[in-house]
This record gives sequence, structure tokens and C-alpha cells, in this order.
Amino acid sequence: MKKMIIASTSTIHGSGYLEYLLPTLSTFFKEVKTLLFIPYARPGGISYDAYTTIAQKAFNKININVKGIHEYENASKAILNAEAIFTGGGNTFELVNKIYKNDVLNDLKQVINNGTLYLGTSAGSNICGITMMNTNDMPIVYPPSFKTLECIPFNINAHYLDPIEGLKHMGETRETRIKEFHVFNETPVLGLREGSWLSVENEKITLQGKYTARLFIQNKKPVELESGVEVVV
Amino acid sequence: MKKMIIASTSTIHGSGYLEYLLPTLSTFFKEVKTLLFIPYARPGGISYDAYTTIAQKAFNKININVKGIHEYENASKAILNAEAIFTGGGNTFELVNKIYKNDVLNDLKQVINNGTLYLGTSAGSNICGITMMNTNDMPIVYPPSFKTLECIPFNINAHYLDPIEGLKHMGETRETRIKEFHVFNETPVLGLREGSWLSVENEKITLQGKYTARLFIQNKKPVELESGVEVVV
Repeated sequence: MKKMIIASTSTIHGSGYLEYLLPTLSTFFKEVKTLLFIPYARPGGISYDAYTTIAQKAFNKININVKGIHEYENASKAILNAEAIFTGGGNTFELVNKIYKNDVLNDLKQVINNGTLYLGTSAGSNICGITMMNTNDMPIVYPPSFKTLECIPFNINAHYLDPIEGLKHMGETRETRIKEFHVFNETPVLGLREGSWLSVENEKITLQGKYTARLFIQNKKPVELESGVEVVV
Repeated sequence: MKKMIIASTSTIHGSGYLEYLLPTLSTFFKEVKTLLFIPYARPGGISYDAYTTIAQKAFNKININVKGIHEYENASKAILNAEAIFTGGGNTFELVNKIYKNDVLNDLKQVINNGTLYLGTSAGSNICGITMMNTNDMPIVYPPSFKTLECIPFNINAHYLDPIEGLKHMGETRETRIKEFHVFNETPVLGLREGSWLSVENEKITLQGKYTARLFIQNKKPVELESGVEVVV
């Protein structure tokens, strides 16, 4: 039985790392003693150790031990033996690059599908979809492929952002970018605002948090999904 | 003798397509009768024909004929025989993808280095650097490589955007993203604000337009370059 939490962001404005999610995580991970942390996305380029320390500090509050995947000799075995897994945010290109370079994509996919609890935030959520093609990140490294875990039947656009009224900058809006994606691809995309997350129980995917989420399906008008509803594509 | 105009954007707020650049282009292209247009970046996913029509409409004002590269049977020959070339903006991933798929990267590089006049805007400017790794675009297609023309010795971040005061969105700023790039790469990056462009004459690169540009060099504090100065990295 697949059980995942797929969150738009680790941190909401004015709050500590994972703070808004801790009540949910405390229930979700209630049987877990040690969480395997995948720090490959390196936000701001920080080291794996520094990133793991940040995660540990948050999980201390709910009495969960965190161990970075880089602390194990064999990354594949670490995943196959993990009680539960958390992939943090940062740069999605580097995250996917390291998942391929360490050859753990299939291991991750397998254990998640077999029921190992999974938490993703931001880049760690982007990889749950079919491809990483809806990331907002800068392509600072060239990964061997854009294909990701396919644990959910659509792609995630994390940190989804509505057009900012009155902005004079001419760069594309998030919606324009996702519509461009649909000129070339059929995969549905869910724009998940900061503070929203998906709760996945096998094939049932439910929107959680305070906000609506914006669902983009090729050749259809985007729709706003209310919090609490099942996401069906 | 290399002669290029590398512009952050085609369009500034409240003004028509290429309007702010037309006085400059009128001088730059003064001997040119027909401009070869590369519409591969397809902004908003529009067709090559529709995009070429937009370019033609702007160049009508300075009596230059525009022909899309897709109107030629052989893209490589079209480039080798072009009087002058303009690559428009849109999605950089798709632009680079089509440049590789049509096998014209080396042709483009060769003719530019040999003196064929080149204008790039946005995605068409991103490709002038060493790699496309500082694009802001969404990775909606997977190109065979991120390597680009290397006609200038640094990368471009087009539509460079300063942090927006008071914004509660937690996505990375442009500066954070470029600093992450420098954890993995040495290539200098120039953040070119909308309304700025580079004038390239052989190895001399000068900043033009009303704004300063922000130069990021690995392990150094970013610096603001004044309009009119030579960009040296």
C-alpha cells in the first residue's frame, strides 16, 4: 500500500523548516524511528551533512531520528532497507542527476510502491510525477533523463504562483509555462501552492492544506481544486 | 569580425514587439535586405509561421524582409547563406532541442564567428553563452545537451529580476539560483535586465540600454556593471 505526502514546500513564510507540516508528519510517521533523508537537491548548494542537520533539527520535535543517504556505503541498500524516506527540496536538476548517477531511481520507485512511507517537499515532490519537466528550477546540471518516479499519474509544479498583479516584468507566468509544456506533452500538471500538499494512499490522492490547487489538463481550461477533494486526472 | 546584439528581451512593458530596439537595429542591420529568422523557441507554443509573421511585422518598420528558417528545405544551408540572423525568444529548452535535432549548432557558431550579423532576444540570447544553464525557462522538452554557441565567454540570464520586496513566496530568487549554478560550474553569468542588451564587436562586449547588469563570477561578490562599460570576465 503506497503512502506518500507530497508537499509544495518545506517552509511557509514566517515559519520554521517543516513547521506547518509537523502535526501531519507526527501522525504519518508515528511508527517510524529512523527516517532516511535524501539531501541530493542541496538547496543553495549546501553540503549533504549541513542539509541533513536541518532535517534532523525539525524531526527532533517529533522524536524521529534522521540519517542521510550519503552516510551509508550503499545508497541502493539504504533505500531498500529504509523504514521511511524523505527527499528534501533544492535544485531538481541536481536531485534527478544524483538519483541517476547513484542508480537508485528504480529502488525508490519499488519501495514506495511497496509501501515504504515517503515524504517529498518541493524538488522531492517534483520527482514523484512522470517527469521533472514542470520544475521551476534552473538547469544548473544536465541529468541523464527528465523521467522520474511515476508514483502519481501527473506532474507537480511545486511553489505554484499566481500571476502578480501590476508586475511590469515580461517573463512568462507559471500558467503560460505550463501551457507551453502542454504543446509538447500530454501529462497533466498540478500547480501546488506553498502550504498545500497531497496525501497519497495507494491510488487515492487527496489535496490537503489551506489552499486550492490548479490542475492543468492538455487542451482543457485549468481548474481550481478545493482542499479535501480527491485529485483525479 | 563578429557582430552581435544580445538582448534580454524582445519586448519591454507597455511597448510593441522589438519597439525599443528598432533604432539600434536600423543601424545594425542597415545593409541587410533579408533576415533569417529562427522561430524554434515558439513562445507560448505558437507555430513557426505565426512567430515569423510577428517578427516580419516589426522589421517592416525598418524595411527588412524576414524569412523563417522552416521555409527553407535545408536549415544548414539557410544559415550558411544568410545575410543576417535573428533568433527569437520563447522556451530555451525547445530552441536548443531543435538546434540539435536540425544539426545546426556548428553552422550557427561558424557563421557568427565569421561575421554574419546576429540578433538574439531572450532564449535567442541565452544560446550565445557557453551553456543554456542559466535560462529561467521550464524544461518542457529534453534537449540532447545544454551546450550552446560559446560566442561570448560567459552565460546569459535573460529577464534578470531583482528580489521583489515583501514577497511572501518562498521560491528561490534569481540570485540564489545563479549562486547554486556556481556551486557546480565555473562559467561567469551576466544577469541582463529587460531593456538591456549587449553589443558584441569581435571580442569587445559592451553593455547597452538604460540599466545596469549584474555580473556573477564564481566565489566573488556579484557586481553591477554600468551601461556603456565593456563586459570583461
